[in-house]
Amino acid sequence: MKILLIGANGTLGSAIDRELSARHEIVCIGRKSGDFQVDISNSASIRALFEQTGHFDALICAAGNVKFAALSDMGEEDFALGLQDKLMGQVNLLQIGREFANDGASFTFTSGVINREPIRTGSSAAMVNAAVDGFVKAAAIELPRGLRVNSVSPTVLIEAMDKYAPYFRGFKPVAAAEAALAYAKSVEGLQTGQTYQVG
Amino acid sequence: MKILLIGANGTLGSAIDRELSARHEIVCIGRKSGDFQVDISNSASIRALFEQTGHFDALICAAGNVKFAALSDMGEEDFALGLQDKLMGQVNLLQIGREFANDGASFTFTSGVINREPIRTGSSAAMVNAAVDGFVKAAAIELPRGLRVNSVSPTVLIEAMDKYAPYFRGFKPVAAAEAALAYAKSVEGLQTGQTYQVG
Repeated sequence: MKILLIGANGTLGSAIDRELSARHEIVCIGRKSGDFQVDISNSASIRALFEQTGHFDALICAAGNVKFAALSDMGEEDFALGLQDKLMGQVNLLQIGREFANDGASFTFTSGVINREPIRTGSSAAMVNAAVDGFVKAAAIELPRGLRVNSVSPTVLIEAMDKYAPYFRGFKPVAAAEAALAYAKSVEGLQTGQTYQVG
Repeated sequence: MKILLIGANGTLGSAIDRELSARHEIVCIGRKSGDFQVDISNSASIRALFEQTGHFDALICAAGNVKFAALSDMGEEDFALGLQDKLMGQVNLLQIGREFANDGASFTFTSGVINREPIRTGSSAAMVNAAVDGFVKAAAIELPRGLRVNSVSPTVLIEAMDKYAPYFRGFKPVAAAEAALAYAKSVEGLQTGQTYQVG
């Protein structure tokens, strides 16, 4: 399969690349690194990406920004960041990308644990993660041509604990390599409309 | 309790008013009707509302617009409608309203069944409903002064079936009066961060 991997240079993206690259052609995409670049918060940038990559069999997005701040400090613009980037970025990857997707192609998006187990400063992340999972479930049933869409909802990664541990006390982190398996399950399996929880 | 009821003139809002008005002072609020008016998609309108209503013990929102259309017809602006109105409208009711909320006051928002059981044309509703539920769960743990926030996620209402039945074949509708009970449970109970599913 020809797999577009957005966020390929990140901790999670690198692990997904390692999991899938032995069996598939991976096109590495990043905001600034990789074979091609994209700013997923900008739909023109998304369209320009697909015009460069051409048709594909699977798209994985392991990227997406949200603002972390105390609820009392969160203004409209802070929520707008996550809605425009991690949420609508992934929605637009499906809505624009489907034009370039081969029959039976899959889209695999990333949400995260914070709507299942909320943490301090996580109100936007919880909102956006839940929205991604809700969108995937509903969009799946309206896709034509055997197109599929799933999300992966990983808990905090072991590799990220040096930075994020104070926010995730008591959470059992998972290795990025373990989270990467869920992306393989989505891409190489046949289910659609699923959220694969990891951890 | 002094309860602000947004969407008081709607099918659901009227039933909530009937459920709670015997025991509480209900301030009826609508987009065009009621004691006061508000456009929840506009944060300046929300602030102007609270400056008129003054302090309160509970706020219920039984209003919020989303676009229903085939996934293939949904553009960015169509998703933006639901994000700005039903989602950020309710978020802003909490973020602005908390300044006017008495200690121990509750906020009760409305999501809906479509992220649990997706329907054709429901991709935006599923996204927004899930986001409301996810936000409530996370925001609840960061609220000070005993403030609480919950959501109610009703299935389709019996009273709406003459209009919506074709979209909800096989769904067992509930009476608005039954859905109204969940709002009473949220307002008059003590839980926070909950999503009360009805039907």
